Amino acid sequence: MLLPKSITNLIESFERLPGIGPKTAQRLVFYLLHVPQHELDDFAGNLKILKTSTKLCSQCKNIDETDPCRICADANRNKKVICVVEQPLDLIALENTRKYHGAYHVLHGAIAPLNNIGPDEIYINDLINRVQNGDVEEVIFATNPTLEGEATAMYIEKELEKIGYNGKRTRLARGLPTGGDLEYADELTLSNALEGRK
Amino acid sequence: MLLPKSITNLIESFERLPGIGPKTAQRLVFYLLHVPQHELDDFAGNLKILKTSTKLCSQCKNIDETDPCRICADANRNKKVICVVEQPLDLIALENTRKYHGAYHVLHGAIAPLNNIGPDEIYINDLINRVQNGDVEEVIFATNPTLEGEATAMYIEKELEKIGYNGKRTRLARGLPTGGDLEYADELTLSNALEGRK
Repeated sequence: MLLPKSITNLIESFERLPGIGPKTAQRLVFYLLHVPQHELDDFAGNLKILKTSTKLCSQCKNIDETDPCRICADANRNKKVICVVEQPLDLIALENTRKYHGAYHVLHGAIAPLNNIGPDEIYINDLINRVQNGDVEEVIFATNPTLEGEATAMYIEKELEKIGYNGKRTRLARGLPTGGDLEYADELTLSNALEGRK
Repeated sequence: MLLPKSITNLIESFERLPGIGPKTAQRLVFYLLHVPQHELDDFAGNLKILKTSTKLCSQCKNIDETDPCRICADANRNKKVICVVEQPLDLIALENTRKYHGAYHVLHGAIAPLNNIGPDEIYINDLINRVQNGDVEEVIFATNPTLEGEATAMYIEKELEKIGYNGKRTRLARGLPTGGDLEYADELTLSNALEGRK
């Protein structure tokens, strides 16, 4: 290969990122060659401190600058309601609605046997402990509407039954997304929308 | 925004890259949170030294570790033939064919008035000087088969005429790409392929 070592190294770093192939990585690196050095330094600095300056909240496993995170530390939030999500970005999406004022639990994944992710690889036990030791009135399952998300929610429900939890268990409503087109909705979405009509 | 500052900063760094929107940037940063620290350090290090460890070849404007670059320094290459390309990646693509053994000239762009890129913003004058002062027998125009690439090639041809260059001037052949489908070829490509039949 004719490329200088520092370029191929950076291309390899970019290639490791999800959804970025060799061609895109090349394009990004050659773009960065035309960027001022101080921007490269900023980028490098942000990468270096990404993990050291963030903490995993010991209560809800959200990622924030402080432990407990800002949501768990907020006295105005109803800690008796726990919304279970797969990823921190799902939490952000829910927060952006400004309609939810309870607590969260971030699993950091979903049960996916094909990818060797079992219940012990994600933060399910921490959730069960939290429900067992806390005064929880409702658990909202906000896992993704996928096979893995569904399986994870079902597994957690069973575990909650085992510890004798008898509070509310709810799931996010299924139906047509706003701005969607009835014609292009898949059968499952449509039948969910029919079933859940009001 | 609920995200820690170090995360939003890195998201912004990624967003500045071409073809990476806010959602992709978020996804990449949250992926990096699960990557070992030493990989992040490597990535950051590669970014920092990207520009300092590479040089612009004073002859052909290729990017390499040394000046002159490895191609210009190679005594086995025919310096009387200059292949004009827009970007260093185009040079790499041509090198990968292993069919070309002449020299290159990298313009670092194409004339694009809509983007405020005129002939002086790219390395056209350096090419003209090179042809004027050197013993050049052939200039191959390997700019992209786009409007901008064509315009750039035409501009350079005129400039070469002005300095009285009377060596060969060639362009890469136009026709059907290997593996392409006649049915989906556009009219211009097909008519080029017809004209250039042999």
